[in-house]
Amino acid sequence: MFEQLGLIGCGLMGGSFAMAMKRAGLVKRVVGYSKSPSTTERARQMGVIDVEAPSALLAVSGADVVLLAVPVAATESTFKAIRHLVTANMLVMDVGSTKRDVVDAARRVLRDHVGSFVPAHPIAGKEVSGVEHADPDLYTGQQVILTPIDKTQPGHLKKAQDLWEGLGCRVQQMAPDTHDAAFAAVSHLPHLLAFALMHGIIHQQNGKEILGLGGPGFKDFTRIAASDPKMWRDILLANRLELVEQAKIFQRSMMNMLQMAEEGNGEKLEEMIAEASLVRSHWRMGQKAK
Amino acid sequence: MFEQLGLIGCGLMGGSFAMAMKRAGLVKRVVGYSKSPSTTERARQMGVIDVEAPSALLAVSGADVVLLAVPVAATESTFKAIRHLVTANMLVMDVGSTKRDVVDAARRVLRDHVGSFVPAHPIAGKEVSGVEHADPDLYTGQQVILTPIDKTQPGHLKKAQDLWEGLGCRVQQMAPDTHDAAFAAVSHLPHLLAFALMHGIIHQQNGKEILGLGGPGFKDFTRIAASDPKMWRDILLANRLELVEQAKIFQRSMMNMLQMAEEGNGEKLEEMIAEASLVRSHWRMGQKAK
Repeated sequence: MFEQLGLIGCGLMGGSFAMAMKRAGLVKRVVGYSKSPSTTERARQMGVIDVEAPSALLAVSGADVVLLAVPVAATESTFKAIRHLVTANMLVMDVGSTKRDVVDAARRVLRDHVGSFVPAHPIAGKEVSGVEHADPDLYTGQQVILTPIDKTQPGHLKKAQDLWEGLGCRVQQMAPDTHDAAFAAVSHLPHLLAFALMHGIIHQQNGKEILGLGGPGFKDFTRIAASDPKMWRDILLANRLELVEQAKIFQRSMMNMLQMAEEGNGEKLEEMIAEASLVRSHWRMGQKAK
Repeated sequence: MFEQLGLIGCGLMGGSFAMAMKRAGLVKRVVGYSKSPSTTERARQMGVIDVEAPSALLAVSGADVVLLAVPVAATESTFKAIRHLVTANMLVMDVGSTKRDVVDAARRVLRDHVGSFVPAHPIAGKEVSGVEHADPDLYTGQQVILTPIDKTQPGHLKKAQDLWEGLGCRVQQMAPDTHDAAFAAVSHLPHLLAFALMHGIIHQQNGKEILGLGGPGFKDFTRIAASDPKMWRDILLANRLELVEQAKIFQRSMMNMLQMAEEGNGEKLEEMIAEASLVRSHWRMGQKAK
């Protein structure tokens, strides 16, 4: 149980976290700050936060748990803004989709207090953003990846684990690099592919007519293409090395399949499809593949 | 109102059609045939069809409306099997995802009776197949594309339009080639991409661990990768020319985005994402894009 949550970034992810923490009885008071004062005000009016802080630093003041729910590109500047009030007893976490860059920024900026920081990536989200879409159930039943480093205080790591479990999440730990490679494959590349597919269609002469024909498969496949542009620009940039690696692997598979189609090699083509189809048919979110 | 539906292929698409036709009171009797006798039997036991036919030809005998709900690659052989009993008064339709090849097969095989054939593509489906998943609501509210040719009898075209509208579908007409190009973009290429993504992940050393981390975005993006391998082998082969064209367009967009990420060109990258995101945010299934 925490006394005070310092929330930096009162959007979808941060707002949902504050609501979930309160509902679970895990925190008494939420002090929130957003870059845009109107967002902070709206969060208070909605009851997502209790007190508006005029700066990130003041949101941290007096908190025993701090959540950075800002775009990954803003992580370093946020650390800089709060570093003077981060203490050894304070649990600091983020919710960023990339972890290598976040960990590097924490080392550089927090220095002696980097042990207070437990890098976290809750695998949850929506294709809409903003505090008005905040939802106390956003994290319920979802996975959270913690990527501690050698300097992470074990006590804080334990607190972080308990906290997310208290919100109904399943928690696992892995190294930041392992995390980034895996999420390039299951999240960042799929976003890039969905954006690229939409982009390619839009710019065709009869793009509007074509789009009008999309059915349920197209709907699901492209849902993530509606995601927030700035957020995804930052993620793709932050994880570009792993993204490019995963794109190469993907392209080999794609070119193979296209070649088989062109050559009329139905047997080989079916084999590749069958492999993908079988694995996807048995896949269940949050369960290790067999 | 029809007297007798001759259903060739009692799987998901055909079975759902028979159930919907009966529920809507559009047909009195359904005579069904499937390649696999156990499927035909199961369809009768489930009440999806009334009578089991021992051959495609006998399923057509006495029917005033015939639906071919077979894999696109089996269309030509099915036409050959039934040609002797196709009459000028009989409405014959298919449900294939590609239309150029189906129309060509109809011309070649049905010849003088090609006018009875109204090529149809209901934009509906599930990632599962088989009569046990047949659902009278599969077509409700969905779009159906009819791709008549010059020889298509206007009376049959009208009957086909009325029939699908009677099942709660929105019907539009277009040329077979226009259809195939559009569906390469919104359906066939997305399937290929989803298969290729899965394939690329599976073959990585820690593929199973990576797959275990997929969240809601991955779930939706890859749903279509669980689709039936034989059916999709046939579709990708049948529409390979348009598929390759659309893949080229997609690849240009993808390579552009990857290059911008690699170069750290956040401004341009955001611009491309924003364009895709804006269009997808306003997209609604079955509505022409603005």
